Amino acid sequence: MAYHVLIMAGGRGERLWPLSRKDRPKQLLSFDDDATLLRRTFLRVRELAADENIHVITSAAIVEQVRADLPELPQANVMAEPCGRNTAPCIAFAASRILARDKDAVMAVLPSDHLIAAPTVFNDALRFAGDVLKAHPELLVTIGIKPSYPETGYGYIAPDQTLTGAGGFELRRVKAFHEKPDEERARGYLEKGYLWNAGMFVWRADSVLAAIAQHLPAMHALLAKTADLDLDAALNGFYAEVESVSIDFGLMEHAANVAVIPAEFGWNDIGSWDALGNILAADDGGNVARGPVRLEESHGNVVLASGKKIVLLGLDDLVVVEGDDAILICPRRRSQDVSRIAKTEAG
Amino acid sequence: MAYHVLIMAGGRGERLWPLSRKDRPKQLLSFDDDATLLRRTFLRVRELAADENIHVITSAAIVEQVRADLPELPQANVMAEPCGRNTAPCIAFAASRILARDKDAVMAVLPSDHLIAAPTVFNDALRFAGDVLKAHPELLVTIGIKPSYPETGYGYIAPDQTLTGAGGFELRRVKAFHEKPDEERARGYLEKGYLWNAGMFVWRADSVLAAIAQHLPAMHALLAKTADLDLDAALNGFYAEVESVSIDFGLMEHAANVAVIPAEFGWNDIGSWDALGNILAADDGGNVARGPVRLEESHGNVVLASGKKIVLLGLDDLVVVEGDDAILICPRRRSQDVSRIAKTEAG
Repeated sequence: MAYHVLIMAGGRGERLWPLSRKDRPKQLLSFDDDATLLRRTFLRVRELAADENIHVITSAAIVEQVRADLPELPQANVMAEPCGRNTAPCIAFAASRILARDKDAVMAVLPSDHLIAAPTVFNDALRFAGDVLKAHPELLVTIGIKPSYPETGYGYIAPDQTLTGAGGFELRRVKAFHEKPDEERARGYLEKGYLWNAGMFVWRADSVLAAIAQHLPAMHALLAKTADLDLDAALNGFYAEVESVSIDFGLMEHAANVAVIPAEFGWNDIGSWDALGNILAADDGGNVARGPVRLEESHGNVVLASGKKIVLLGLDDLVVVEGDDAILICPRRRSQDVSRIAKTEAG
Repeated sequence: MAYHVLIMAGGRGERLWPLSRKDRPKQLLSFDDDATLLRRTFLRVRELAADENIHVITSAAIVEQVRADLPELPQANVMAEPCGRNTAPCIAFAASRILARDKDAVMAVLPSDHLIAAPTVFNDALRFAGDVLKAHPELLVTIGIKPSYPETGYGYIAPDQTLTGAGGFELRRVKAFHEKPDEERARGYLEKGYLWNAGMFVWRADSVLAAIAQHLPAMHALLAKTADLDLDAALNGFYAEVESVSIDFGLMEHAANVAVIPAEFGWNDIGSWDALGNILAADDGGNVARGPVRLEESHGNVVLASGKKIVLLGLDDLVVVEGDDAILICPRRRSQDVSRIAKTEAG
């Protein structure tokens, strides 16, 4: 029962425009580290899985950059989606390929562009998830983040009774998944002990495929149809027809055998410049500044200079980010609207 | 009695940093016009004076750029100060050189980096000044701008009784020059009909030199000592020893025979980014934008992009200026503090 990992690296990261671009999405950026977020994810999970069992699915646009970023991986372990179809298809496709190689495979599905401040706790949680699958092989396990504030940008997981526990972790049944709430509802979720849905899953490859067969039968049939093709032909054949649907909406919200491991490991999805500003080390004035930056009578700003010196005078709580060919300036509280800008800017 | 013009082009223009730099001060910038402010000044005064009677004094650092910007001028008419010594020395030096060529010279002294919206009125005022010197050759005439608001960044001129008038202009005695006031005092000056001191003068070369002999005798003696040297040797010898003093403080405030012509010709000294924003055409949102700029839910900003696209989201009343190697961001009301930044930035 070997541990496999699927790193999902198809994201476009529009919310970190203009640093993230179509040809350099968030997972290929690095923050306060030489390694990209993708590579940091890879280095983390090497503690769990052998290199030949670490798989990455990404977009055709950046597949060569991903391979160059992870030279330790076999070429065939880096799969390129011909087009984006949300999370369910790529998970289904990878699960079927992993299962073909290892019929007892345990498979963690992880985003490629999140920060984890406590990687040891993170890996312990994933190991615990793998362990519980020995006694409960049918379970679809998700990792739920203990929330620290009523965020409206995440989905929430309502946990139910505890199934088992070990090493400080517990495994709980899932009562329900909830879409992104408004702020009042988010506060209610916190009071009820709901968890953030971070899009991290651990399951046996055969179990998730069985669940896909039940809840997404057309998708499962397409997998069977393309199973005997070589990798690129299979990807092209599958993606040409598969529907676009998220694993949460398509599977997790309907499946009965779903469980969650509540965890805290300094998780942050860097969903906005504001979020990044809350993670990176700030100076005495509360400013997060990287690159050639001069701050005069300015506080609480996030300023990332990549070439020209950026000088702020008498300004607070702004985001200023210099990309290769654009400079974004907005209040930190408007960070969520940056993706709207990114969508209509070339590159 | 030929009309000569001395254009003073030694300014560093720190208040328009980072567009203005040591090697490209304000007078060498252009705004909504192909021509630089210096060249626009030159083109204006060609209506008054023959090219051989138009003189420019600038700094050694930019003299070649100035000559390239004004190719119509004889090389010797563009004089380079070896070092900055405020306005009195360069005026005294130029006056002595002009007098040596034309003992009846009338000489206007004009800044090189101001905008004049109504050049015809401006030239009419200067012509009127030249005319009055025929009857009053001893007068030191200054042009006073009728103020439109209680600016604290300019000196003021208190006019006294009217001496003469013609063509809509009048010539008045000067009661006193006043330093930059605080705002309350500035409001009082407006009520009393005081004028802005724009640093523009018209006088006979022999009269101003006589006044310099009286009020700045050491400076006058230095002129005599270097009078027979060729231009560069004279400049070097004079500037090596001359004291640094403004023409206002060193001469105008002490001289008895001073008069002022009140005038209105859409004058603006572009003393800050905010001032520039008030001059240039704005869009419906009150934004002044030049270059590749995108403004979303943003109003009243001054945004000058010179390369990268600058995107503002949800911000009002800012200055954003991209220079060659620096980007300034500050509230418009802090524009006056930009020179402090410029002084401590390289270039």
